[in-house]
Amino acid sequence: MLPFSRVAIIGMGLIGSSIARAVRQKMPTVALTVTDADAAVRERVRELDLADQVTDHAGAAVVDADLVILAVPLGAFAEVGAEIAPELAANAVVSDVGSSKQHVVDALEPVLPSHVHLIPAHPVAGTERSGPDAGFADLFEGRWCIVTPAANSDASAVARLTEFWTRLGAQVETMDPRHHDRVLAVTSHIPHLIAYSIVGTASDLEEVTRSEVIKYSAGGFRDFTRIAASDPTMWRDVFMVNREAVLEVLGRVTEDLTALQRAIRWGDADTLFQRFSQSRDIRRAIIEAGQDTGEPDFGRHSES
Amino acid sequence: MLPFSRVAIIGMGLIGSSIARAVRQKMPTVALTVTDADAAVRERVRELDLADQVTDHAGAAVVDADLVILAVPLGAFAEVGAEIAPELAANAVVSDVGSSKQHVVDALEPVLPSHVHLIPAHPVAGTERSGPDAGFADLFEGRWCIVTPAANSDASAVARLTEFWTRLGAQVETMDPRHHDRVLAVTSHIPHLIAYSIVGTASDLEEVTRSEVIKYSAGGFRDFTRIAASDPTMWRDVFMVNREAVLEVLGRVTEDLTALQRAIRWGDADTLFQRFSQSRDIRRAIIEAGQDTGEPDFGRHSES
Repeated sequence: MLPFSRVAIIGMGLIGSSIARAVRQKMPTVALTVTDADAAVRERVRELDLADQVTDHAGAAVVDADLVILAVPLGAFAEVGAEIAPELAANAVVSDVGSSKQHVVDALEPVLPSHVHLIPAHPVAGTERSGPDAGFADLFEGRWCIVTPAANSDASAVARLTEFWTRLGAQVETMDPRHHDRVLAVTSHIPHLIAYSIVGTASDLEEVTRSEVIKYSAGGFRDFTRIAASDPTMWRDVFMVNREAVLEVLGRVTEDLTALQRAIRWGDADTLFQRFSQSRDIRRAIIEAGQDTGEPDFGRHSES
Repeated sequence: MLPFSRVAIIGMGLIGSSIARAVRQKMPTVALTVTDADAAVRERVRELDLADQVTDHAGAAVVDADLVILAVPLGAFAEVGAEIAPELAANAVVSDVGSSKQHVVDALEPVLPSHVHLIPAHPVAGTERSGPDAGFADLFEGRWCIVTPAANSDASAVARLTEFWTRLGAQVETMDPRHHDRVLAVTSHIPHLIAYSIVGTASDLEEVTRSEVIKYSAGGFRDFTRIAASDPTMWRDVFMVNREAVLEVLGRVTEDLTALQRAIRWGDADTLFQRFSQSRDIRRAIIEAGQDTGEPDFGRHSES
C-alpha cells in the first residue's frame, strides 16, 4: 500500500521537481498537486507535465493532500506555512527538504494547526543546477534522507514518511534537528561557504587576471566552482538560519587552516606531510559507502 | 619532423607515465628511456611496457637524450639535477613538469652544464591518483602547458619544447616563472591546501562522527575529498618551495572568508546574496573555455 495518496509540493526547483518526477515514476497512482511562487516556473512545470495539477497559490495546492512537502528557500517557510495552514486536512503530514532543521520547527510549529503532523526531512542530494528543468527522477537514489521528528511525533506518520523516501530510492536516517544542523554545517554548509569564498577571492585579485584563473583552473580551482554555482537565494537563507552551527565549525576550520599556514611559513615539512597523508582514507570510505564515484577525476571528460 | 628523437623521463608517477604513454602513442618513433627512484615502480613500468628502456639510475637514462623531463617531486630536483649533469648531451633540452617554476630555476641552474638548455614547463593537468598505473595518454588533451623560459633562452629550443607539448595535445602558453608561481598558487595550490585542511578538520571533530561525515558527504564535502586524495609528497614539496606566493594569496583568502563570517554573524543577507551571485559566471566561463565538463555534478554517477 502506498504511504500517501495525495501529495502536494510547494516549490518546483531542482529538489521539488525531482520529487515530482520520482513520484510520477515510482508511485504513478498518487494524485500530485504542485505550485511555485514564480509564474514562469508554474508555466514551465505545466509544459513539462510534471504534475496532475498546478495551482497558482500554495493554499489551493494543499487541499485534501495527505502529504505536503515544502521545497522553498528556508527564508520563505514562515510565510508559506501561514498561507497553507487554513487549508490543511486533518492528519496531513507536513514535511520539507530544507538544509537546516531547527529553523523548520521554529518557523512552522507556531503557524500550523494542531491537527497536522509536522515531520521535517532533508534529502542530502542535489546538483549545482536550479529550476524545474534541472530535476531528475533518480536524484535521491542511494542518497541519505535525514528525518527529524519531535519526541512526541506520531510514530505511524514518521513511518509513512520514511516509506515515501525509501520508495524514492533514499536511505532514511532519524536525527535530532540540532544535531542534523551541526552535521550538515560540516558536510555541506561550510564546503559551500568556502567554495563561494575562494571563487570570489580568485575573481578579484590584482595580479592574477580572471582569464588566467579560467585557463588554468584544471589545477584544482575548477572543482570549487561547481558548488559555488549553486542557487544564491537558497544558500543565503541556509547561512541566515544555521548561523550558530556554521560559525562554530568555521572557527575550527580557520584554526586548522592557520596551523597549516604556520607550517608553510616555518618550513615544517613533516607537519604538512602528516596532515596531507590522512585524507586518502576518508575519500576511500566515501567511495566504499557509495556516496561518490570511484573513477579518477570524478570520471569527468572535459575535452568534450 | 619530430621536435626530439630521444626522450628521457625521470620519475614515472601519474605525470611521467602519462607523458610516456602519450609519446608512445603520438610519436612512436621516439626512443624513450625512463627511470624512477623506486625499484618497484621501475619493475611495474617494465611490466606495463611503457618505454624502450628502463634504467636503474637517472644518469644512465639521460645519455644521448635530446629532451630530458624531470617528473619528480620538487624537493628532489637539486639531487636529480646533480646526478644527471655529467651525462647530459650537448644542446639537450632539460625540462620538467613541476608546479612551481622559480624553484626549478633555482635548483637546476647551478648544477647543470652550460651546454644544455634549461626550459622549465608545467602541464596544468592531473587526477588525484598517483603512480605508473594512474597515467593515461590523453591526460594533456585540451589542457594548458605553461613554459617559463629565461630571457636569454635559445628560441629554437623553446620552439621545439612547444611543439612537443602541442603534439601531446596541450595548448602552450609562455610566462615569467614568478608570475606562473602566483597564478598557480591561486588556481591550484590554495585549492589543494584548503581541501586538505577541510578534510582534516571534518575528520577530527568531537560532536560529528567520521561515519556521519562519510554518510552525508554528498551535501558538498565529497567534492573536497577528491583533490585532498592527491600525492602527499608532491604537495608537501609544492608548499615548501612556493611558500611566498601561497602565503600571500592565503592572506587574501582568509580576509575574504572573514568578511563572509562577519556577514553571517550579523545577519547581513544582502552581502551574502551578492557574493554568492557572482560565482556562476566564472563556472560558465570555465566550461566555455573547455576546462571542465558542462554536465551537472561533473556528470558523475555515484550509485554504481
